[in-house]
Amino acid sequence: MPFTSQKEIIDMEHNLLKNIKSPDDVKKLDDKQLPQLAEEVRDVIISTVSENGGHLASNLGAVELTIALHKVFNSPNDKIIWDVGHQVYTHKLLTGRYDRFTTLRQKGGMSGFSRPDESEHDIVYSGHSSVSISTALGIATANKVNGKKDYAVAVIGDGSLTGGLIYEAINNAGRMSDARLIIVLNDNGMSISKNVGHLAKRLAVMRSRSGYFRLKAVTEKVVSKIPFVGRKLSDKLFRLKTDLKNMIYQSNFFEDFGVRYMGPIDGHNIEQLCDALEGAKLVEKPVIVHVNTIKGKGYLPAEENPSDFHGVGPFNKENGDIPPAKTNFSEKFGEFLYNQAPKDKRICAITAAMSLGTGLRKFSEEFPDRFYDVGIAEEHAIPFALGLSKSGLLPVFVVYSTFLQRCYDQLMHDCALQNTRMIIAVDRAGIVGDDGETHNGIYDTAFFNGIPNITVYSPAYYCDLNNALVNCLYHSNGPCVIRYPRGAEPEKPDDYICDGRLFSVLGDEDADIAIVTYGRIFADAYKAMLTLKAEGKKVKLIKLNVIVPVPVDSVFELKDVKNTFFFEEGVKSGGVGEHFAMTMLENEIKSDFCLTAFPDCFVKQGKTEVILNEYNLDCDGMLKVIRGIIDEQ
Amino acid sequence: MPFTSQKEIIDMEHNLLKNIKSPDDVKKLDDKQLPQLAEEVRDVIISTVSENGGHLASNLGAVELTIALHKVFNSPNDKIIWDVGHQVYTHKLLTGRYDRFTTLRQKGGMSGFSRPDESEHDIVYSGHSSVSISTALGIATANKVNGKKDYAVAVIGDGSLTGGLIYEAINNAGRMSDARLIIVLNDNGMSISKNVGHLAKRLAVMRSRSGYFRLKAVTEKVVSKIPFVGRKLSDKLFRLKTDLKNMIYQSNFFEDFGVRYMGPIDGHNIEQLCDALEGAKLVEKPVIVHVNTIKGKGYLPAEENPSDFHGVGPFNKENGDIPPAKTNFSEKFGEFLYNQAPKDKRICAITAAMSLGTGLRKFSEEFPDRFYDVGIAEEHAIPFALGLSKSGLLPVFVVYSTFLQRCYDQLMHDCALQNTRMIIAVDRAGIVGDDGETHNGIYDTAFFNGIPNITVYSPAYYCDLNNALVNCLYHSNGPCVIRYPRGAEPEKPDDYICDGRLFSVLGDEDADIAIVTYGRIFADAYKAMLTLKAEGKKVKLIKLNVIVPVPVDSVFELKDVKNTFFFEEGVKSGGVGEHFAMTMLENEIKSDFCLTAFPDCFVKQGKTEVILNEYNLDCDGMLKVIRGIIDEQ
Repeated sequence: MPFTSQKEIIDMEHNLLKNIKSPDDVKKLDDKQLPQLAEEVRDVIISTVSENGGHLASNLGAVELTIALHKVFNSPNDKIIWDVGHQVYTHKLLTGRYDRFTTLRQKGGMSGFSRPDESEHDIVYSGHSSVSISTALGIATANKVNGKKDYAVAVIGDGSLTGGLIYEAINNAGRMSDARLIIVLNDNGMSISKNVGHLAKRLAVMRSRSGYFRLKAVTEKVVSKIPFVGRKLSDKLFRLKTDLKNMIYQSNFFEDFGVRYMGPIDGHNIEQLCDALEGAKLVEKPVIVHVNTIKGKGYLPAEENPSDFHGVGPFNKENGDIPPAKTNFSEKFGEFLYNQAPKDKRICAITAAMSLGTGLRKFSEEFPDRFYDVGIAEEHAIPFALGLSKSGLLPVFVVYSTFLQRCYDQLMHDCALQNTRMIIAVDRAGIVGDDGETHNGIYDTAFFNGIPNITVYSPAYYCDLNNALVNCLYHSNGPCVIRYPRGAEPEKPDDYICDGRLFSVLGDEDADIAIVTYGRIFADAYKAMLTLKAEGKKVKLIKLNVIVPVPVDSVFELKDVKNTFFFEEGVKSGGVGEHFAMTMLENEIKSDFCLTAFPDCFVKQGKTEVILNEYNLDCDGMLKVIRGIIDEQ
Repeated sequence: MPFTSQKEIIDMEHNLLKNIKSPDDVKKLDDKQLPQLAEEVRDVIISTVSENGGHLASNLGAVELTIALHKVFNSPNDKIIWDVGHQVYTHKLLTGRYDRFTTLRQKGGMSGFSRPDESEHDIVYSGHSSVSISTALGIATANKVNGKKDYAVAVIGDGSLTGGLIYEAINNAGRMSDARLIIVLNDNGMSISKNVGHLAKRLAVMRSRSGYFRLKAVTEKVVSKIPFVGRKLSDKLFRLKTDLKNMIYQSNFFEDFGVRYMGPIDGHNIEQLCDALEGAKLVEKPVIVHVNTIKGKGYLPAEENPSDFHGVGPFNKENGDIPPAKTNFSEKFGEFLYNQAPKDKRICAITAAMSLGTGLRKFSEEFPDRFYDVGIAEEHAIPFALGLSKSGLLPVFVVYSTFLQRCYDQLMHDCALQNTRMIIAVDRAGIVGDDGETHNGIYDTAFFNGIPNITVYSPAYYCDLNNALVNCLYHSNGPCVIRYPRGAEPEKPDDYICDGRLFSVLGDEDADIAIVTYGRIFADAYKAMLTLKAEGKKVKLIKLNVIVPVPVDSVFELKDVKNTFFFEEGVKSGGVGEHFAMTMLENEIKSDFCLTAFPDCFVKQGKTEVILNEYNLDCDGMLKVIRGIIDEQ
C-alpha cells in the first residue's frame, strides 16, 4: 500500500481520535467505543514512533490506563502526575494534541515528556524517575488546606519504585490520612513485591469492584461520625481487616506504611480500570491502585522485546526491524572495561538499572559476581562503591550524566571526602538530542568543578576513553570521573596523538589566536582551526583531556596569544571555562578571553548537531564567534 | 570539690578505661567488669562534652552497644560503619583515643565524627545520614568476592531510617542472600514501624537468645546441602516461619525485603547485646538487630530533654544548665516567617527533621496544618513543595546547606526546570565551626551557580534576611533561595542601609581599590575598608545581596577601579567569584581581579572565626591579601 506522507496514514483511520479535543470528549464516548479509541491511539503511536523514534513499549502499555484515567478523573482540576513521563503519548493524544503528534520529539515540536508549556493538562515537567508521588502528595495536601475536593493522581511504573524517593513519599503519604491522593502503579513486569502473589489476585477481583469500595467508604464514614470512639472503632476495623488479610496472604509494602491497596487490576481492560479508579476515589485516603500492564501491548515486536523498544530510534513499522546501532561511546566503554576485567579481578561494575544503555551487557554476562545492578538507586550506588573500594575492589559506576545528579551528596560525602579509589563513568555527557531538557548532560561539568579531590576526564575519541580508563584504574589514588557523550566519536585528525596526557596542543606555536576546548567538540574546533589557518591566520588549539582540576600548565600555552576562545559543551555559569579564565588570571596570562558555553537555561529537544550549531559550539558557530571578535579588531 | 584542670577530673576514676588501648583490651575484660567500663566511658563523655560541646544524648545512648560491638566483633577486620557518626565517642574511647579525648572538636584535635585519618577503626568519614547500610553492603559484597569471612556492621539510628537511601540499601541487601552484613538499628524512641509492637517484644525475648540462632543456622545449613530440593526446603522453612509470625503479629518492613530481623534487644544490657550480636553472626545473611536504647542514658538532664542535648554547646555538668542561645539567624528566620503567616494563608513551611535547629518550633505550634516535617527526606521535600506550589500555596523549605546537597537533582528537575514559586531557606550556609568538614555549608554557592532560573539571596544582617524573605514571597515569580549562616548577625555599620536592593555600594566613589563580598563577612570587609581609608587610600565596598544571578550592574561600579578584591565564604572553583570575574570580563571591566575563597578542599573543625582568619576571610586576612598586592605595585 503506497502512501505519500506520514500525516496521511494517520488521518486514514482515526474516526474517534480525530474528534477528541479534550478529556471531555473522551467522557462523551460510549463505553463500548473505548476499545476502538485505544486501537486508534495505538496506531498513531506506532506510526509516529516508527518515524521519529521515541518511547514505544512503555507508551503502548499505558493506552487503556490513560483512557480510563481521563474517563474517571476531571483533568486539570484533578491533577495527573506522570512519573518519568515516558508514558504520556496517549495523554497527549487525548488532551488536544492529536494534530501536532507527528512533530513528536522534533525541534520546535511536541516533547516526548510532560510539559506544562504544551498543555494545562501537563501539570509538571517530567523526565526523571520516582518524584511523582511526592508532587501529587503536595497537590493533595494543598487541596486539603484550600478545602478543595479535587484528586491528585500519581502514575508510576514499577521500575521507578526502586528509587528511595518513593519510600520517602509513601512514608509521608501514609501519615496524611485524609489526603485525596491516588497512586496508580503501572506494573509491567518487574517483581515489585513477593507478597503480591496468587492469593492477592483472587482477593483483588472482589476488592476492586467499585461496589465493594462504595460500601466500605460509607461504613467508615458513618462509624467515624461518632466522636473518639468512632474514630477508634474505624481504625480498629481497618486493623482487623489487615490482620485478617495478613493471615491469608502476607501484608505488602504499601499497607505497612498506611497506604490502602487495591489490585492487581487488568491494565488493558478499560471497564475494570474505570471501576477500580472510581472505587479509589471513594476511599478519600491515600490509596494505591495496582495495575498490571504489558509493555509494548498491541505491537508484537515490542511485546516480545520490550527493552529494545523502550527508547528506540526510527524503525520499520511493518516488521519491527530496528537499524543496528553504530559503534558508540557506551559500547566502547563497555568493551574496554570488559577487556580489563579478566586481567584484574578487582574490577567490578555498578549500574543503576541501565546495563543495556551503558554497554555493560557483556560484562554482566561474563562476570556476574562482579556486576551489580542496584536499580534506580544512584544514591546507594556511591556509598556501595565506597564499601567495595574499602575492601580492595576497584568499582566502576556507569551512569548517565543527568541521573548522576541524584547522588550529588554522595559524590561529596561518600566519594570526594573519602578520597578512595572509585571510577564514575558518566555516559550521555553533553547534549543528548531528542529527549530534551530533562536528559541533557550539560551540568555535571559545573558541579564537579565545585567538588574537591575528584579528577575528571573528558575524552573526545575512543582512544582517549581507553587512556582515561587505564589512567583511572592504574595511575590514580583517588576518585576519578570519565565523561563521554551519547553516540559515536567524531572524525579524528591525522596529527592528533592519543597520548593520555592532561592536555594536547596542536597548531602554530607562535599563534595569535588560541582555541581551547574539550570533549567531542574538539573535532569541530580542529576544523575551525584549519579554516582560519587556510586564511593565513596563526592559530593553536588546546585540547583539555582532564578538565577538573584544570591542568595549570595549559594556560601558559596562552602567554603570547592575543585572543583565546574557549568552547564548552556544558553550562557556562560555574563551569570549566570560568575556572580556566580564573586560572589564567591568577597566572597573569593576559590574553583576551572569550567563553562560549550554554547560558543559564534548559536546552530543549532537537538533533544534537542542530543544537550545537545554535549555541555556536560546532565548526561554523566557532568561526562565527572568532570572526566576530577578530574582525572587529 | 575543687580541681585544677579537666584532664585531672578525667584521670581520677577511670581505672579500666585508661588501660584500654584497643578493642582487644575490651575483649580481655571479665564480663562482670563491662558495666563498670560503661560507667567510666559515660563519665568521660559527660565531662568532656560539658566543656567542649558535642553530641551528648546520642553518644550516651550508645555506650553499652559500642562495648558489646567491640566485644563481639574483631575490628578493623570486621568493619563497623557508624551512620551519621554522632554516636562514636565510646568507639573512639575504646580504640586508643582516650588520651586525646579532651581535644574533642577542638582545632587540630579529635573530630566529633568518624575519621579514617584518626584510626584504622574508623573505616569511613561520616557526618551525613542514611548511608551506612550501603557502605556496609559494599564491604560485605567485596568480602564475598574476596572469599573473606569478615563481617560488615552498619550501626544506624531510627531517625536515619526516614531517608530513602535506606530503602535502596535494604532493597539491595535483601537480594544478597549470602552477604555477611549485620545492621544494628539503634532505636532510641522514634516509632519506626507500627508493626514492632508488644507481641513482637515478647517473641523477641526467645528469638534473641544466641542458642536459638545457633540452632536455626545449623538447621538451615544442613538442609541447604541437599541440592535444589534442599534450597527450596530451606526457603520454605523460612516462609513458613514468616507466615506463622505474620499470623501472630504483623510482618515488618525489613523482612518484607528479605532481611532477617532480630529484636528488640535491651540496648543497655551488655550481656543481652552480646548474645544477640553473636546470634546475628551465625545467620550469615543480611540481618537486622533491633536495639532499644535511651537517648541521654545515665545523665538525667539529657534523658529528660534529649533534644536539647543532641548537639549541645558547653553546659554546667553539675546541674545540666545550658546557657541560653543568643539571637541567631535561624531564630530570626523562624520569627520573620511566623510574622508573615497570619497575613497570608498560602505560606507553609517544610522541614526535614530539623524544626528546632531551623527556628520553626513556634510556626509548627501555631500553624500545624501548614507545617510539614517530612523526616530526613530532603529529596521528597522539593517535589512535595512543587505540588504545594502548583496548587496555590507558597512553600518555604528550611534546610541546612550541607543537607540540601541531598536534593540537587530535585533542585534541578522539580524546582529550577518547573520555574514555579518556592522558597528554599538555606541555614548553616558558610563555615559552621566545630562539626567540621561534613557540615560546612561552603558548596551551595557553587552548585546554585550552575542551576538555571533560581535567584539566590545572601543576607549579612537580620534586616537583609527579612528583606530577602519579603522579596521572595511577594516580588518573585520563580524559585528563590535565601542562604544565611549559623549564629548571630555581625556588627552593622551606621551607614549601611538595608534597602533590599540587589547590591549596595559604600565608600569612595573615585576609589582605586574595591572590595566585593557577600554574606556575613561583609562586616569584616567594612572594617578592612575603614582601616585602608584611615591610611589615606580610596576604597569602595560592594556588597552583593543577590549572588545568583550576579547583578550585572554591580560590575560597572568597578570600571575606574585599579584593583578589585573579591572575598567569598564559599568554595572558589565554580563559585560566585569566578562567575563575577567572567561577568567583568564580558563587560570589558579591566580592573585587576583577586579572588579569595576556599580552595578545593574539605575544611576541618575549629572555631568559625579562627577558620575565617586562616583562609583570609576576616578583616585581618582581607587586609593581608590587599596589602600583599597593593604594596607590591
